[in-house]
Amino acid sequence: MAPLAPRTGDAIFANVERVNAELFTLTYGAIVRQLLTDLEEVEEVNKELDQMGYNIGVRLIDEFLAKSNVSRCVDFKETANVIAKVGFKMFLGVTASVTNWDAEGTTCSLVLEDNPLVDFVELPDTCQGLHYCNILSGVIRGALEMVSMKTEVAWVRDMLHGDDAYELQVKLVKQVPEEYPYKEDD
Amino acid sequence: MAPLAPRTGDAIFANVERVNAELFTLTYGAIVRQLLTDLEEVEEVNKELDQMGYNIGVRLIDEFLAKSNVSRCVDFKETANVIAKVGFKMFLGVTASVTNWDAEGTTCSLVLEDNPLVDFVELPDTCQGLHYCNILSGVIRGALEMVSMKTEVAWVRDMLHGDDAYELQVKLVKQVPEEYPYKEDD
Repeated sequence: MAPLAPRTGDAIFANVERVNAELFTLTYGAIVRQLLTDLEEVEEVNKELDQMGYNIGVRLIDEFLAKSNVSRCVDFKETANVIAKVGFKMFLGVTASVTNWDAEGTTCSLVLEDNPLVDFVELPDTCQGLHYCNILSGVIRGALEMVSMKTEVAWVRDMLHGDDAYELQVKLVKQVPEEYPYKEDD
Repeated sequence: MAPLAPRTGDAIFANVERVNAELFTLTYGAIVRQLLTDLEEVEEVNKELDQMGYNIGVRLIDEFLAKSNVSRCVDFKETANVIAKVGFKMFLGVTASVTNWDAEGTTCSLVLEDNPLVDFVELPDTCQGLHYCNILSGVIRGALEMVSMKTEVAWVRDMLHGDDAYELQVKLVKQVPEEYPYKEDD
């Protein structure tokens, strides 16, 4: 195990309150159904789910930093690993693997084999363009923006559309150096 | 402890998958916000949340019966107790108390002091008629209907509107005797 790899057991999350995954799954399904009814275009539903996720991610990052025991990540590679092994575990109870790094180390994929959002879900033919789990891409984008990383997050594989896994591509677009309002030597 | 009182510790729910409560709370908040944007009347939002909850309850009852280890309830009193102590615990991680029984034993209140749905929520003045947690009343109604109890469920106290607790009144309207498609002595 790499020296920086965080612990992924449940024990470190004993301080995290939890609700039943099936309740969450069905509640999330109710959102998607509502959006499909209200908005006419599947593309609009994708956008709205992503925006909802962004708003949630902006809030969830505080819970994550407060309760994960993760210290500052040295680079985007470590950040991706922490999202996959600690973030997904803390929030959804599953882990992801990190693969498909580009040469610059600024783009990678998070691959989920188990995805609690989609239990019991089957998409009708009218929903071929729907990114059902788009709230997740928004959450990641929103949370990373709060720690000064501007990213683009997109689905490249989706089991609801017949792929063999859920794969989210995360691309670091810009990293804003954090500025301190005080001098280092104060 | 009453002989019929179920165990309420977490141990009996080790088989239940869980997600982070804050993620659930924020996701639920996103639904309510979406409905407030899409539907013009607060009363319509209440109805829609209740209907969403009903659809969820109809599904969740299977998870509950499969994983709770609760055996058939002898009457509505025991049913109310099981909802309060086992159902709320399994799905939301909190328990409710059962009070305010009427003389017939067909109406009671479930009182929640801790309610994970409302963390971080403050209602604007324009939402005075909103039953923010109306999904819960729908869930209970839907789940009970699947076990042959037709009920009416309504909020009588709501901390978001300044009350000192969350109180749901549950009224048993009709109990349909379960019919078996086979003879008892087969």
